[in-house]
Amino acid sequence: MPAHLVSHSYGKSRVRLTKVTRGPQQHDLKEMTVDITLEGAFDACYTCGDNSSVVATDSMKNTVYVLAREHPVDSIESFGLHLAEHFLKTYDHVTAATASIGLTRWDRIHVDGKPHAYAFVGGGDERRTAEVRVTREGRSVTSGLTDLLVLKTTDSGFVGFVRDRYTTLRETDDRIFATSVTANWICRPDIKVCDWNAQFERVRQLILETFATHKSLAVQQTIHEIGDRVLASLPEVDEIAITMPNKHRILVDLSPFGLDNNNEIFVPIDEPYGLIRGVLCREKAST
Amino acid sequence: MPAHLVSHSYGKSRVRLTKVTRGPQQHDLKEMTVDITLEGAFDACYTCGDNSSVVATDSMKNTVYVLAREHPVDSIESFGLHLAEHFLKTYDHVTAATASIGLTRWDRIHVDGKPHAYAFVGGGDERRTAEVRVTREGRSVTSGLTDLLVLKTTDSGFVGFVRDRYTTLRETDDRIFATSVTANWICRPDIKVCDWNAQFERVRQLILETFATHKSLAVQQTIHEIGDRVLASLPEVDEIAITMPNKHRILVDLSPFGLDNNNEIFVPIDEPYGLIRGVLCREKAST
Amino acid sequence: MPAHLVSHSYGKSRVRLTKVTRGPQQHDLKEMTVDITLEGAFDACYTCGDNSSVVATDSMKNTVYVLAREHPVDSIESFGLHLAEHFLKTYDHVTAATASIGLTRWDRIHVDGKPHAYAFVGGGDERRTAEVRVTREGRSVTSGLTDLLVLKTTDSGFVGFVRDRYTTLRETDDRIFATSVTANWICRPDIKVCDWNAQFERVRQLILETFATHKSLAVQQTIHEIGDRVLASLPEVDEIAITMPNKHRILVDLSPFGLDNNNEIFVPIDEPYGLIRGVLCREKAST
Amino acid sequence: MPAHLVSHSYGKSRVRLTKVTRGPQQHDLKEMTVDITLEGAFDACYTCGDNSSVVATDSMKNTVYVLAREHPVDSIESFGLHLAEHFLKTYDHVTAATASIGLTRWDRIHVDGKPHAYAFVGGGDERRTAEVRVTREGRSVTSGLTDLLVLKTTDSGFVGFVRDRYTTLRETDDRIFATSVTANWICRPDIKVCDWNAQFERVRQLILETFATHKSLAVQQTIHEIGDRVLASLPEVDEIAITMPNKHRILVDLSPFGLDNNNEIFVPIDEPYGLIRGVLCREKAST
Repeated sequence: MPAHLVSHSYGKSRVRLTKVTRGPQQHDLKEMTVDITLEGAFDACYTCGDNSSVVATDSMKNTVYVLAREHPVDSIESFGLHLAEHFLKTYDHVTAATASIGLTRWDRIHVDGKPHAYAFVGGGDERRTAEVRVTREGRSVTSGLTDLLVLKTTDSGFVGFVRDRYTTLRETDDRIFATSVTANWICRPDIKVCDWNAQFERVRQLILETFATHKSLAVQQTIHEIGDRVLASLPEVDEIAITMPNKHRILVDLSPFGLDNNNEIFVPIDEPYGLIRGVLCREKAST
Repeated sequence: MPAHLVSHSYGKSRVRLTKVTRGPQQHDLKEMTVDITLEGAFDACYTCGDNSSVVATDSMKNTVYVLAREHPVDSIESFGLHLAEHFLKTYDHVTAATASIGLTRWDRIHVDGKPHAYAFVGGGDERRTAEVRVTREGRSVTSGLTDLLVLKTTDSGFVGFVRDRYTTLRETDDRIFATSVTANWICRPDIKVCDWNAQFERVRQLILETFATHKSLAVQQTIHEIGDRVLASLPEVDEIAITMPNKHRILVDLSPFGLDNNNEIFVPIDEPYGLIRGVLCREKAST
Repeated sequence: MPAHLVSHSYGKSRVRLTKVTRGPQQHDLKEMTVDITLEGAFDACYTCGDNSSVVATDSMKNTVYVLAREHPVDSIESFGLHLAEHFLKTYDHVTAATASIGLTRWDRIHVDGKPHAYAFVGGGDERRTAEVRVTREGRSVTSGLTDLLVLKTTDSGFVGFVRDRYTTLRETDDRIFATSVTANWICRPDIKVCDWNAQFERVRQLILETFATHKSLAVQQTIHEIGDRVLASLPEVDEIAITMPNKHRILVDLSPFGLDNNNEIFVPIDEPYGLIRGVLCREKAST
Repeated sequence: MPAHLVSHSYGKSRVRLTKVTRGPQQHDLKEMTVDITLEGAFDACYTCGDNSSVVATDSMKNTVYVLAREHPVDSIESFGLHLAEHFLKTYDHVTAATASIGLTRWDRIHVDGKPHAYAFVGGGDERRTAEVRVTREGRSVTSGLTDLLVLKTTDSGFVGFVRDRYTTLRETDDRIFATSVTANWICRPDIKVCDWNAQFERVRQLILETFATHKSLAVQQTIHEIGDRVLASLPEVDEIAITMPNKHRILVDLSPFGLDNNNEIFVPIDEPYGLIRGVLCREKAST
């Protein structure tokens, strides 16, 4: 009674790449990390080590370099589409190709108040992301960002939650709210082309502004508010998923030392942490 | 045209816990990291900041501590079931609870050749894992391990793969095969109780022995062979998913220095890396 | 023949702290990680477990919280001095106290083009640092920064180095120069007070501008140039130590694919990496 | 008034290397990470970008590969000496060379109860280390280990420490003691050759056994006891430095939930942590 191969996939992960585009006025810099995953008729490799249909993951890595040389890489979405489609066009036995790309932030160094033409300073751990999946039936593009770290010192509270045997947390109508936002959004199916870069900057700015200006009664409510505003402001966006870990700042009890602590001294802790997720979509007309 | 909340969940992540059980002969030590996720009727918190149905994630953390005190924690599967079921029993509006647990390895220190009663040495980054999901309809238990780092210096090759414009990799019939195994398995639906600890040790040993003794023509083939042997040896296991990143050791070209390199000097690289996945199940009798 | 205790020290590491100062117009935010180390007459604890002179490291942690509540924490240097001096004033048997502080960067979120009063976005892994050491004889303050990540796409070369049996690197007069700067500087002994914050911003900007505008013939030369400019611009600074790991971007050889690569496609690698250090001081008048 | 170059050094860090030695019965495996640092007459590179005396760090990397091919790498100390001496022999203007090597642990996989000839399982984050420094005047070898993670569930207490305004910690005569040992030792100056591997295993086992069997009144006392036993057992060792972070397990207060907690449920925390250091040497006969 032999085992049966239910599903399988393989690919190359963490293909890192720097592309420099030398314009007349300044250099553009794109640094990416690319993951490629293929699905298809690779069963013989699993069952009997027959590699005749296997595209080596080393060749996938080369493909990323070659295609990045030939493509403008104007956005990670357009490059991801080009890359994923390449594998379906080139190899008949591939049924699906997924390209996941993370883009590092680099900001121009300012010299005498002006952005420098070719010198950059790192923009932290935040990544702009795109996941493109192409099959014989169609394609999907998910744009996003991860690790957008934000903190507000007030306008956040948490009261009225369940109190029972397991509850020791005090209610507070004024706490620090710190989180590291992950957001992923997809466009309406009829949207074929898009100014991905402008869309990204718009969504990112909406996340920042909503976080800053919305009075939060719960992390959940802030997630909903951000989703609401993104969908209201970008008619081409159909759905957005937002994840917010609660990066807790714990008020220190200074009473043993004869001191009060009027929301002044906190301890940041990494763990444990609350983790809140919500997915919002555009309300369908007739539903 | 307001936004619509498609799905949501929340919980507490990275609740760490050490449980010491003081037996007459020796102390037992369990160190775990627990993630709890709840789904249910929490919409009002998202839409209008009404927390009246919200179990604070801080209370979830307390619940983990309390239940670990009251439960023997004989296996992470049994504790995970107890924990997840607690949330459904206690809160009517919770529709699903998931407990994901990682268990740290601790080995006893040997003194004069004998295992010590209460002193331990760390067992590395490998984790035994369990994910338990309980809903009003039923429950599922996935057992597993992550980051089981293994390496063999021979009996691994990779030949006969696709050669085209993007191929520069040489064929080799003798290479280092190093990987960090992640495996997850589930039992047949009719299995209600199980010696989870014995099962875990059995699967882990099968993975190690198969990796060591199977001549590998491809990482894919090794995955298939491991799955095959686990399913053949453990009749209660129904399905196993295995992921193997290829932790490449690259043969160094020493010819510029007038030296040969007969599979002696390699460079380990962390990225990019091949990533191979396969899911195997027991062949159904009549299919 | 018993062992002899040559030297010893102990303390508390990674005491994290958030201080919010609520001004009339806006909130100020300081997030720090503090390490405290004490030296002194603690031998009896080592030799016979006599803790009567031991200040518990847990108490050191409390001390950081209490002093942060009582002190304005206007700069990490002034707070570090206050903290280190506290231990010498409070405990007669302490002979030296060192406070090492890392300050996280938080930038204000801009809403409608204006900086927000109490909402912030994370500034990455870069840390402003201060190490303050106080003894019965005196005190020293070292200011600094770590992990200032910078990259320039041109105006960097590396030619004319030693070529021998071990050399395979090609000369290049145009390469990417990326590094993560660590710098530490100390003031002249006669400087007792200082606008530490202004000094820090000045040094940081000089590092950025020099990196951007100096044509680099070697990482070493850039280190020297930065040190030179800092010492020339800040008369109160006596010495500066700079460390630059070479965060290599390797030009990809695309010739196997029939393509040229005119400094366009690179692979960033984390390891191995060159690591260059230099310490510069003000030329003494008569030496 | 130009700047003056006080000191400088440069080198290559994180040169990773796998060496496989194919014996008749089994394969031996050594995985190392090597850092090379050179000091010498490199000033012109700093002051004017003159690289004519600069050994490229890329060439240092090649040197590590070449020398590892030519040398048996029987111990990291002997290989480190060979490597550091190479740079002084080869380049007249080098005044000092330092090789720092970390050795990864790999244990043989057991199949049918017997160690396998060429298959290994990872041994965790612990590293055996050696730092070799060679100058024109002489050489020094420091052997060591890092990240040896150990935990005991009893036979550790902490009482009688200073109690004052800043103290909230309770005394305990029974706590968990967990730490991650770093130890570095040097031999007497007259010791020129040494069975480095046997010495390492002996010291490591002494650390484990002393940690397990010594009743600890303070982390400091355990450090002293380990140093004492190492110096007493290995006459060729002259000095040992030991660092122990206190990897705290905090007893959970379960009284709010109506439960006692008799040293059963703890929370492991990563930060803040106590950090204790001690250096012991052999008592000099007549001093």
